[in-house]
Amino acid sequence: MITVIAGGVGAARFLRGLVRVVAPVDISAVVNTADDTVLHGLSISPDIDTVTYTLADEIDPERGWGLRHETWRAMGALARFEGVRPAGSAAAPTWFNLGDQDLATHFYRTARLAEGATLTEVTAEIARAFGVSLRILPMTDDRVQTRITVEGEGEISFQEYFVRRHHSVAVSGVRFDGSDTARPSVVAVAALRDATAVIIAPSNPIVSIAPVRALAGVDEILSARRDRVSAVSPIVGGAALKGPADRMLAELGHEPTVVGVAHLYAPIASTLIIDPVDAHLVDRIEAIGMRAVVVPSVMSTPEIAADLARAALAAAGIGV
Amino acid sequence: MITVIAGGVGAARFLRGLVRVVAPVDISAVVNTADDTVLHGLSISPDIDTVTYTLADEIDPERGWGLRHETWRAMGALARFEGVRPAGSAAAPTWFNLGDQDLATHFYRTARLAEGATLTEVTAEIARAFGVSLRILPMTDDRVQTRITVEGEGEISFQEYFVRRHHSVAVSGVRFDGSDTARPSVVAVAALRDATAVIIAPSNPIVSIAPVRALAGVDEILSARRDRVSAVSPIVGGAALKGPADRMLAELGHEPTVVGVAHLYAPIASTLIIDPVDAHLVDRIEAIGMRAVVVPSVMSTPEIAADLARAALAAAGIGV
Repeated sequence: MITVIAGGVGAARFLRGLVRVVAPVDISAVVNTADDTVLHGLSISPDIDTVTYTLADEIDPERGWGLRHETWRAMGALARFEGVRPAGSAAAPTWFNLGDQDLATHFYRTARLAEGATLTEVTAEIARAFGVSLRILPMTDDRVQTRITVEGEGEISFQEYFVRRHHSVAVSGVRFDGSDTARPSVVAVAALRDATAVIIAPSNPIVSIAPVRALAGVDEILSARRDRVSAVSPIVGGAALKGPADRMLAELGHEPTVVGVAHLYAPIASTLIIDPVDAHLVDRIEAIGMRAVVVPSVMSTPEIAADLARAALAAAGIGV
Repeated sequence: MITVIAGGVGAARFLRGLVRVVAPVDISAVVNTADDTVLHGLSISPDIDTVTYTLADEIDPERGWGLRHETWRAMGALARFEGVRPAGSAAAPTWFNLGDQDLATHFYRTARLAEGATLTEVTAEIARAFGVSLRILPMTDDRVQTRITVEGEGEISFQEYFVRRHHSVAVSGVRFDGSDTARPSVVAVAALRDATAVIIAPSNPIVSIAPVRALAGVDEILSARRDRVSAVSPIVGGAALKGPADRMLAELGHEPTVVGVAHLYAPIASTLIIDPVDAHLVDRIEAIGMRAVVVPSVMSTPEIAADLARAALAAAGIGV
């Protein structure tokens, strides 16, 4: 059994490689839910959906999120309400795009949660509906919300930062509201504790992986079996594979390189997998106490992602 | 000022005629909300939307509900979840069709209600978004739910009866859950009390007009100014213009004719407008204590609806 700690797009691409080298039923993905939001009354879990849609091969390959062959008729019709929304109302935002087919997923999730199902149960049902046999596990069934402090603006939600501001504003703080009382799900805890190997996917360390780590007991589980934990760097050549991880690292006082990533992960992981472009930094990573493994990490094809997955497994002593 | 008590399709067609003879800003429609429902987490007000879309000339002319040029991509994508829904779950029903563009209206309503706006406020905002200047007033801002007792099945919701069972099952009882504590909205009460004339639209007396009448004080207001109240029969030649009103009347022990309608409305309205096909029943209507006015009532064109509206106004002494 292999467990991957996952954010959205980067993790989904890594998992698409991993399922080529390990049977999907032997893989669990513990997925960040601190980006989850409620819009139009609908419960939306962006990272879970990105992982699900990617593994179902239904993801839109250009955008990297949402479904293929998507239409945007509901979104288009929202524009009508722009002019009548009273001052102070945030109803019917048009900045968060939800495709027409994608809406059905949110309808199902929202209705099942209203019926009392846990997010873990609903996520499994949705995965089954999409024919995905890899176990997709929300990190928690409780509510955790990433809050981003943006200079000159105060604290905003993750989606306001990521989607509405196109993650183009400077960040001075990140916290995970609710994580002091939220508990990791029982199955997520078991998946982290019992896995032969745990892989931290190439996701944003600050807003995708840190919310999982912020849950009670997670870092303790990982540090206790650190030799079984490897991490894939989401930073290659000083730049994020996707999204704002490089800028966020710098803005929050970390080195925006694989060395900065190593500092963050050294307490919980024994190995950091880095791209050949960063091979000159191996000594600095090892000085922090992590082993560095050099493998091509830019997952431009599923084959590269599969090789990367193989290297991550090998780091935990698993040959495939 | 003219006030119309309204259900869905029949009332909407009548109002489309009325706005040809009276300025829309001088008309209020007090609309049934007991058919309102929550599906997929979305607040849906079918009668209000039918009235709004019809007056905006955005209604689909063939279906009589929903928007023109509609698509059904979200609904189509829901089918995927049919096979994974656990026993006992009613999540993601595919029997209640919501068009992609129509969804935007429900998104806006749901979000505004969640922000604390009243249904009256939200309905006015939506009407403005659709360019409708007639005042569309929900009968109440509180929750009232029509519950239908179906033989052999017990009590079901209005939409389960009307949409899911295609109103093809025998009804043995109707009640309006919540109407004992719900209050009619302040503006609806004022519209009924202060109007020069009140017209009961050709809607189902049992499930569209009765919920309005069930609210505290409404029947008292109408009976106190009964000479100003006229009703348009939704039954023509013993058949409902639309929907199950004829069968419902019979199943619940009423005569499924204009005479049965007259019995229901005699306490609150002085005039019943009936189609020429029912002219032979004038004496029986007048024996109940209502004046009968004979005017073509099958609103196959807006012109016929306008003539019908003119007759309803004349019944209250208003010449237009």
